[in-house]
Amino acid sequence: MAQNHGPLVYEGKAKRIYGMNEPGEVMVEFKNDATAFNAKKKSEIDGKGRLNCLLSAYFFELLESEGIQTHYRGLISDNWMVAQHVEVIPIEVVLRNIATGSLCRETPVKQGTKLKPPLLDLYFKDDALGDPLLTESRLELLDLMSSDRRAELEKLARRVNDVLSHFMQKLDLLLVDLKLELGTNQEGQLLVADEISPDTCRIWDLRIDDPRDRILDKDRFRQDLGGVAESYEEVLKRVQEVSSRPRHYN
Amino acid sequence: MAQNHGPLVYEGKAKRIYGMNEPGEVMVEFKNDATAFNAKKKSEIDGKGRLNCLLSAYFFELLESEGIQTHYRGLISDNWMVAQHVEVIPIEVVLRNIATGSLCRETPVKQGTKLKPPLLDLYFKDDALGDPLLTESRLELLDLMSSDRRAELEKLARRVNDVLSHFMQKLDLLLVDLKLELGTNQEGQLLVADEISPDTCRIWDLRIDDPRDRILDKDRFRQDLGGVAESYEEVLKRVQEVSSRPRHYN
Repeated sequence: MAQNHGPLVYEGKAKRIYGMNEPGEVMVEFKNDATAFNAKKKSEIDGKGRLNCLLSAYFFELLESEGIQTHYRGLISDNWMVAQHVEVIPIEVVLRNIATGSLCRETPVKQGTKLKPPLLDLYFKDDALGDPLLTESRLELLDLMSSDRRAELEKLARRVNDVLSHFMQKLDLLLVDLKLELGTNQEGQLLVADEISPDTCRIWDLRIDDPRDRILDKDRFRQDLGGVAESYEEVLKRVQEVSSRPRHYN
Repeated sequence: MAQNHGPLVYEGKAKRIYGMNEPGEVMVEFKNDATAFNAKKKSEIDGKGRLNCLLSAYFFELLESEGIQTHYRGLISDNWMVAQHVEVIPIEVVLRNIATGSLCRETPVKQGTKLKPPLLDLYFKDDALGDPLLTESRLELLDLMSSDRRAELEKLARRVNDVLSHFMQKLDLLLVDLKLELGTNQEGQLLVADEISPDTCRIWDLRIDDPRDRILDKDRFRQDLGGVAESYEEVLKRVQEVSSRPRHYN
């Protein structure tokens, strides 16, 4: 870490957030901790913090270049970034291009089904409740956002999914699904927050046919397939081949 | 049982369905079996089949009198009825007037919160999947019904809830929530099917303040409160005081 940070304001499963002298900005440290199944499964994976921080920086800059606002400001080191302080909306937005994971446990939709249009699922971010799926009516009942904001959120999430899917496709990567967290800044604008990485996206290698070997994301950890860091590294390598190094924060 | 029935066509957790000579009609036998938590908890409760059959008959006739179509044709005995054969829609429609049960486990909504308008939840009827909650998008993905049919179903379910709530209110009973199953007959009309009973409705006694003692429904079984049949009997008693005996099928 290259700069002094303020007090720890939040520690999550994969990141620590610190205050900064600059009001309205925070410093984000990406940890090597790996968790799955609502933190019932835990481990530490060397290099994961660096990989997820770098990949997030690349993906946030990609989104920016497409006119999509994110909380990202710039890197400080390979596993630290500066981000705009946002009011996080306590909802996980999941976009699914291919059916797998919980969708296939919770519906009769078959593993590998192409979802056109991509399926959007909203989950209430609450570890104690196990991040439950929200219907539109439950979302309304919880009074978490207006219906206009919901429409805006859905439109934004779908654009992020389109931009990332298209980019990955060119790298022979398939974006299977994607979890986004969104927040609002002081001006009330909706921004993509949190991280975008193989912890939050399912990514399959289109150069590999074997359904286990092609997995380049956190499912390697969930399913004990090994080679977690190596897979994330493979994604980073392909991204780096076509992108310029993310900017340094100053 | 007063009449010969045809072959068993379906056995569920609480009922057996038999064919009849009359095509388009079935005979429904209400069993004393009690199950909860997706049949992880099982027991037998003397008299439950009779109570649920009679109460369903009363409630179906009440709905009919309000112009709502149901599959019910008439009683054969206290625990057997004849019903129209319907194509069951594999969805459980839950209307909630007061927050309790799974809603309070799956959201931060507090126990006892009045839900205005009543909250409508749709669950996919599938024991192996644990009857998962359906969002509108997942419902669309599963292609179980058109959006027109969905709107019709919602309107019908809300009317059933209104009619039953209003009726129960007059008996000093509070309809807390209600699970409906719907089906279509050969003409494609949407009908209320299955049963309407303290197995499928949560009902609280408005004459009693104690939050455990006032429960007159399957929660007595779920929560091991005892007096299951006595509670169902109390509901039946109040219904009988204001209703004429359900018709006999012939």
